[in-house]
Amino acid sequence: MNPLDPKEFRRQGHMIIDFLADYYQNIGNYPVLSQVEPGYLRNLMPEFAPLSPEPIETILQDLQQHIVPGITHWQSPNYFAYFPSSGSTAGFAGEMLSTGFNLVGFNWVSSPAATELESVVMDWLGQLLNLPKAFLFSGSGGGVLLGTTCEAILVTLVAARDKMLSQIGRENICDLVVYVSDQTHCAVQKAAHIIGIHPKNLRVIKTTKSSSFTLLPESLSSAIQTDVQNGLVPCYLCVTVGTTSTTAIDPLGPLCMVAKKYGMWVHVDAAYAGSVCICPEFRHLIDGVEDANSFSLNAHKWFLTNLDCCCLWVKDPASVIKSLSTHSVYLENSASDSKLVVDYKDWQITLSRRFRALKLWLVLKSYGVVNLRNFLRSHVEMAKTFEGLVKRDERFEIFVPRNLAMVCFRLLPSAVAKISNGSSKTEDVANEINRRLLDSINGSGTVYMTHAIVGGVFVIRCAIGATLTHTTHVIMAWKTVQEHADAILNY
Amino acid sequence: MNPLDPKEFRRQGHMIIDFLADYYQNIGNYPVLSQVEPGYLRNLMPEFAPLSPEPIETILQDLQQHIVPGITHWQSPNYFAYFPSSGSTAGFAGEMLSTGFNLVGFNWVSSPAATELESVVMDWLGQLLNLPKAFLFSGSGGGVLLGTTCEAILVTLVAARDKMLSQIGRENICDLVVYVSDQTHCAVQKAAHIIGIHPKNLRVIKTTKSSSFTLLPESLSSAIQTDVQNGLVPCYLCVTVGTTSTTAIDPLGPLCMVAKKYGMWVHVDAAYAGSVCICPEFRHLIDGVEDANSFSLNAHKWFLTNLDCCCLWVKDPASVIKSLSTHSVYLENSASDSKLVVDYKDWQITLSRRFRALKLWLVLKSYGVVNLRNFLRSHVEMAKTFEGLVKRDERFEIFVPRNLAMVCFRLLPSAVAKISNGSSKTEDVANEINRRLLDSINGSGTVYMTHAIVGGVFVIRCAIGATLTHTTHVIMAWKTVQEHADAILNY
Repeated sequence: MNPLDPKEFRRQGHMIIDFLADYYQNIGNYPVLSQVEPGYLRNLMPEFAPLSPEPIETILQDLQQHIVPGITHWQSPNYFAYFPSSGSTAGFAGEMLSTGFNLVGFNWVSSPAATELESVVMDWLGQLLNLPKAFLFSGSGGGVLLGTTCEAILVTLVAARDKMLSQIGRENICDLVVYVSDQTHCAVQKAAHIIGIHPKNLRVIKTTKSSSFTLLPESLSSAIQTDVQNGLVPCYLCVTVGTTSTTAIDPLGPLCMVAKKYGMWVHVDAAYAGSVCICPEFRHLIDGVEDANSFSLNAHKWFLTNLDCCCLWVKDPASVIKSLSTHSVYLENSASDSKLVVDYKDWQITLSRRFRALKLWLVLKSYGVVNLRNFLRSHVEMAKTFEGLVKRDERFEIFVPRNLAMVCFRLLPSAVAKISNGSSKTEDVANEINRRLLDSINGSGTVYMTHAIVGGVFVIRCAIGATLTHTTHVIMAWKTVQEHADAILNY
Repeated sequence: MNPLDPKEFRRQGHMIIDFLADYYQNIGNYPVLSQVEPGYLRNLMPEFAPLSPEPIETILQDLQQHIVPGITHWQSPNYFAYFPSSGSTAGFAGEMLSTGFNLVGFNWVSSPAATELESVVMDWLGQLLNLPKAFLFSGSGGGVLLGTTCEAILVTLVAARDKMLSQIGRENICDLVVYVSDQTHCAVQKAAHIIGIHPKNLRVIKTTKSSSFTLLPESLSSAIQTDVQNGLVPCYLCVTVGTTSTTAIDPLGPLCMVAKKYGMWVHVDAAYAGSVCICPEFRHLIDGVEDANSFSLNAHKWFLTNLDCCCLWVKDPASVIKSLSTHSVYLENSASDSKLVVDYKDWQITLSRRFRALKLWLVLKSYGVVNLRNFLRSHVEMAKTFEGLVKRDERFEIFVPRNLAMVCFRLLPSAVAKISNGSSKTEDVANEINRRLLDSINGSGTVYMTHAIVGGVFVIRCAIGATLTHTTHVIMAWKTVQEHADAILNY
């Protein structure tokens, strides 16, 4: 047995490439949302691992027959759920190379190219975003590639906590307060819990429809003042540029102004919307970032790098390193001692790390900045098209103004009135009917969308950005929505 | 621009496969440890990201010319550093498929197959390790695939912390104590810091050479008693099966007996040695696991899955879920509500997750259990060979008894005496000469080994387990060591 025999590697590698190329070719034929029932696979799989080897041909048949039906096809052109997981040939190629080299770049010496390429591409992307020099290695900051935004938030939250505790004393950890809005990603709540923030000190500030579910500086300010009066210590604010439910854009500049007064750490979570800020016309969304401490986006959401690839920039890497560095004798080396190199293990939660920079490098080189900008713009244009279609059907409403490539819409209470049996709780009925509409759409397998509930209202989210999606798919998606609405409303 | 055009995907995919197959074919020709200087790449790379696309052919040339020289070749047959990153065609194929499907399996509904296959393979592997049913889904526990051991430790530590704080009150977080030995991986210290354990409450228990650097139950017991007398609360013990420095095997059973008295959470970190426990003759290394709360191993270290793939089993998933679950309206779905499914987002730090189960499934099916056992055994045999060679050269000693496939050795103080200029600090001189020997070996590029310092003694670690390594490479590695020793001692 030679598990890395180059000849066999080549043979099987080519087979997998063909399997996947065929998959992409036929992806439109699969139901987008898998229609299997809980437990379907356990019944199909043997109880024990096989004692003897199976040929790759058999394994791929097994995959096609048993696994693929249980897959929800995130790369389908008819995928409009959550946010996309943005895949591409370049992203795939980068991940293949990373997996093939299979190196572990925890520090510089363990593979210098892994560290250095990461620093280079993070500066490249930071420049494209027009981030202040203070966030770049070419300035006084720097960037790191993590798996997900959850990690970016955990990393910055620990740094913020320790910075504050070094001033007020470690025993006062229960006094620290973390600020979010009711639209902030649950990652912040989870990270705050993990690092020992007292549950009563996660301050969730209410947003409303009238301000498009953005966090208002005056609401933040008033929450902070109350906390300070109660002897608590403001520690960390997460500002979201493109919330998950409705892509709301928190007003970054004014929020930073409030936070600055209290010496809090401000993190900008631009997981979804960050990528599009490489287009000059969208850059204003992150105006004010110069006053934040850290900024992150998920390149796997809208920058073609395949899962997983979160880009985090920090102004003060030393504060992160102070919190997350470890010393192990067996990792000592003269390059680290020289302080001339970056050791990324001290910028993240884990020690081991994959060579993620390759895929970002390949995406930037394979497509080039001009094409990338136009590609992102094309998703926004498709969303405009979808928005226009919704607006033309008076049974529906666009629930919040569309910001980027996601449209939040619903059947209006007035449209569902005739099947509400004169119920006075029209909004409740509308929620129920919209939920039924969404289930009906997704049950068809034709498209996949998901929902949000904001301000008590159930809305359907159509998130455009799957790489294979074209305008034709968007138009078809709307037709599907209408057909299912017809069926439900005529029931 | 169509970044997922199946035709172009196929063309480029085949090119990358050939690139990597060629790489494996020629890997023995590269210096194992990259010989570049800090900053080498920044000078070679343009200052800005390219505006226009570059063809894949140019990018691969760039990769070969600029990136590959900065890579430390972890897949080289002459790689004996740290622990291996265990790659294989099956592991690679699994990662390709995962990257190709590019789905995000945070909960069951987001891709049922991803969740269900993971549960199945974790039960398969758990059975192979003869883990008690209490750790398996077919019993009352369950397993999850994470990135690294650092995550496994963070996950279990948070669960342990919250379990204890629910009894003693959240405000007493500063009283919790975490127990490790001075050989425990620094991941525990880092995780303890992250979750808010007071730095003075990380109890690092000394080990000695006389007990092969294992954690002694009586030392643990005495440390705990002192803490309890001081009003502190024992919370978590990490037992290591195969330490990083010397592959020491902590006595799991007796340590659990001590911990049990205090209601502590016991985690077994078998990152390296866990995989080999699928061989019946090594299973005794984890005897006593039935009394632990959680158990983890890194399949990317010695189970051919490529980076990253940490397998974590827990006896009481509910305690982990209680600490790590989040609720987001936009993730609500009827499958989750039914409680019939696993939502792995609540078993880990992050929300998004890759479809890692595919590679473990492919490894198990492609090679079969019998071959896998023999493959692991072959590494242990090669280590025996290396050990035998060291023993035959009386200038050297095996510093601690070899347990598995790693040999800790050094030039003896007596051998370096003649160049110590009659210094009375023979041990210091020996350390210095062994360090110089290691630098000399690694500077040659012929092999790559790393060091540890245990009990004040600098030792060279020869960790065997890179997939392409054969006995001939091990013999050549020893010859390299001898040649460099000759040169240094005759200086």
